[in-house]
Amino acid sequence: MSKNLTSRAEDYSKWYNELVVKADLAENSAVRGCMVIKPYGYAIWEKMQAELDRMFKETGHQNAYFPIFVPKNLFEAEEKNAEGFAKECAVVTHYRLQSDPDRAGKLRVDPEAKLEEELVVRPTSEAIIWNTYKNWIQSYRDLPILINQWANVVRWEMRTRLFLRTAEFLWQEGHTAHATKQEAIKEAELMNNVYATFVEQFMSIPVIKGIKTESERFAGALETYCIEALMQDGKALQAGTSHFLGQNFAKAFDVKFTNKEGKLDYVWATSWGVSTRLIGALIMTHSDDRGLVLPPKLAPYQVVIVPIYKSEEQFDAISEKANEVIKGLRNLGISCKFDNRTTHRPGAKFAQYELQGVPLRIAIGPKDLENDTVELARRDTLSKQFVAISQLNETVTTLLEEIQDALYKKALNFRDSHITIVDNFEDFKKELETKTGFISAHWDGTAETEQKIKEQTKATIRCIPENNKLEDGVCVYTGKPSKQRVLFAKAY
Amino acid sequence: MSKNLTSRAEDYSKWYNELVVKADLAENSAVRGCMVIKPYGYAIWEKMQAELDRMFKETGHQNAYFPIFVPKNLFEAEEKNAEGFAKECAVVTHYRLQSDPDRAGKLRVDPEAKLEEELVVRPTSEAIIWNTYKNWIQSYRDLPILINQWANVVRWEMRTRLFLRTAEFLWQEGHTAHATKQEAIKEAELMNNVYATFVEQFMSIPVIKGIKTESERFAGALETYCIEALMQDGKALQAGTSHFLGQNFAKAFDVKFTNKEGKLDYVWATSWGVSTRLIGALIMTHSDDRGLVLPPKLAPYQVVIVPIYKSEEQFDAISEKANEVIKGLRNLGISCKFDNRTTHRPGAKFAQYELQGVPLRIAIGPKDLENDTVELARRDTLSKQFVAISQLNETVTTLLEEIQDALYKKALNFRDSHITIVDNFEDFKKELETKTGFISAHWDGTAETEQKIKEQTKATIRCIPENNKLEDGVCVYTGKPSKQRVLFAKAY
Repeated sequence: MSKNLTSRAEDYSKWYNELVVKADLAENSAVRGCMVIKPYGYAIWEKMQAELDRMFKETGHQNAYFPIFVPKNLFEAEEKNAEGFAKECAVVTHYRLQSDPDRAGKLRVDPEAKLEEELVVRPTSEAIIWNTYKNWIQSYRDLPILINQWANVVRWEMRTRLFLRTAEFLWQEGHTAHATKQEAIKEAELMNNVYATFVEQFMSIPVIKGIKTESERFAGALETYCIEALMQDGKALQAGTSHFLGQNFAKAFDVKFTNKEGKLDYVWATSWGVSTRLIGALIMTHSDDRGLVLPPKLAPYQVVIVPIYKSEEQFDAISEKANEVIKGLRNLGISCKFDNRTTHRPGAKFAQYELQGVPLRIAIGPKDLENDTVELARRDTLSKQFVAISQLNETVTTLLEEIQDALYKKALNFRDSHITIVDNFEDFKKELETKTGFISAHWDGTAETEQKIKEQTKATIRCIPENNKLEDGVCVYTGKPSKQRVLFAKAY
Repeated sequence: MSKNLTSRAEDYSKWYNELVVKADLAENSAVRGCMVIKPYGYAIWEKMQAELDRMFKETGHQNAYFPIFVPKNLFEAEEKNAEGFAKECAVVTHYRLQSDPDRAGKLRVDPEAKLEEELVVRPTSEAIIWNTYKNWIQSYRDLPILINQWANVVRWEMRTRLFLRTAEFLWQEGHTAHATKQEAIKEAELMNNVYATFVEQFMSIPVIKGIKTESERFAGALETYCIEALMQDGKALQAGTSHFLGQNFAKAFDVKFTNKEGKLDYVWATSWGVSTRLIGALIMTHSDDRGLVLPPKLAPYQVVIVPIYKSEEQFDAISEKANEVIKGLRNLGISCKFDNRTTHRPGAKFAQYELQGVPLRIAIGPKDLENDTVELARRDTLSKQFVAISQLNETVTTLLEEIQDALYKKALNFRDSHITIVDNFEDFKKELETKTGFISAHWDGTAETEQKIKEQTKATIRCIPENNKLEDGVCVYTGKPSKQRVLFAKAY
């Protein structure tokens, strides 16, 4: 199968689309812009969810669930205080009922009826959640509220791509309420750090932590913290954001509390989220022209075993050995699949698991039975070795850690070699045309300059990096004085 | 707090509604018929999800995700083959867009635009899933497909009640495709058994397994397997259903495959689901006038520790002891909460955990420190005992098992003492007016009789029990001959 994959050099975008479909991760659905996440893709999302959920809970958060619909008037309340908040939305205007309320027997479907108040399908849940928090918060004793929600959201995107930008996507959204500004800022920073740790340690993707410029902030946020990753085609991808929302949403929904001093004040807020978009980042960071490459910590199975046999007798003997091997590996917490399908040849199986990015492949043939060995192949380096069964558990354990680490380092090298320091606009444009990646350049701090650079180059300021070095310089575009460099890039 | 709870005897329905809200499980939202599931309620759902998901995977199923929207024409295709399938639905007719596609700067919101094809918010996903399976299935080698989805669904219910019937609810829906009728029937039966095991072993709710009559079947199903539970007010609650769908959906969406003999045939289907409604069943089965009673296997925390102190010094010493206790219990996999809030008195804490149904409460006071004991209280029986700390781990472990078991037995006794054998329609009506519960009666097998009984008594046939005893009798309503008794009840 992998032979048919378009190469990255030939057409990166086509390579990505083909890979997502051929590796059985997702596909387009009958609904414009909505995807079907197939079992193999969904298994990656489940692994990501499990880790993130654990990290959220360890940092004191609880899960809850709020309605998918937001009455239109709540949106309007919000827009006054968080202008531009309204996203591209799907709007429910009608409902239909059955004439028989018991659902039994033959039914007539009534004509549709118009809703008194139209409902927006949530593009994000600040409005419905802050409207709810209003009733939960009276005093500082009710704070903080540290809630996360796993949910589907809908944004009416006109140009969609599997995982990267879809009309419906899955995500988590944290919404916290605090008694003080300092506490809310600390929370927003904490969660951006949680995201960075997750993306680096589990996805093996290096990220740059930073803050967004005012124009790139989430509408309603006073500060947007973000993590930015670099894809193999040199485009940046925003992997997660965490917003310090100040008192904007509390004001929009009139959420006040009595503080320790007995005075009424508005509540301080944060929100933060990552989505199935991360699967797009995972694919684009590590995969190659032969298919997916998955970091062991997120692979649906870390090891696949393929039997090589010519007779039923051999198949039985190999199966017995394979089951022993699996038992040993599973005891170590390593997830394994034994592909004992008799309908497919080993070559087809090899191609499938290469395409699907299984970190380690074990092949067992008649020779291996004689020698008490297996053939062990690494997906990331494509290297192979024979390993004595007595050494297998140890070798696999070590290799899985090595692969996780090697993927990170490879991506880090790539990222670091794609940050270019640029000091004039000619070089800026030339860099973007040739090498791409992040451009580190001085900027005069105005939204106007940012906008002009974007119009002329399609590059945006991805972030002002955390702990950014201060240095005197002049804006790459206007020549006005600047105190620090920021990171520009074209982005997904 | 619990003092304010309406008693079950006074007004069962009011008791339920108050309990859900006061125990912090859920509340109504700003959206008609949609609920907010609060952290404590959601934690129960997470525990249920974890167990069910494990059971689904152990029986060979994988998770996936399909779009929330279903194009209207797919619904119409379906209705031809599964008449009456269309549920009360919310319909998306419009979208709105921003005029600035970059989301930056000041935005104007465009007027809404009408969709070319209206989208139904999924009430269940057969249509979108079978329309997708069509492309996945060509040969018997592609079968079976064993997929489950965790999702939100929307049914435009006019009368809603928290958990029991809400416009939006959370559920799982399994959708499987098979090469043979026998295999599909086996799957539908298997999943009904999985549900029964889960509800009995984890929720401590006894269920009667059976099949629905034709009128009560899911539209499009050839057989609906179900599990029926009995609530404390004597009304039945359908806790889960599993449908053998025959080839109806394959025909509606033209899903054919080449079988082993090389002939084209339609694919055989099942679907099965349970929802957040189960939380309603959990509440109504075990709880009492003081509040929730939770089976240990689903309690968000199984043990709560409340310190009883008068001085800061005592508080510190008790906290130290409590942390030791927690460490020991957590090592055994027992979930604990130490309520060290200094803003609330012990009495308020006791009332809260009683209301919230925490299975075991440990109180530690200065006397306990002297004696190296704790006071241990059971929520279900309200009994208390002093336990030596050296014995605590063992006692708690044993008690949690005992409680899980005791709740089941209590519910089973109640259920079994509320099945009444009735042989004439006068007794039938009298039973329903006085004692309520299940009525075991002969029925002539016609939908007409079923409908008349329903109109006159509000009782429906809940199921024809599995392995039902055959006996000659006459229909309780028409006097016509009958071969077996079926179970009637009023139901949620």
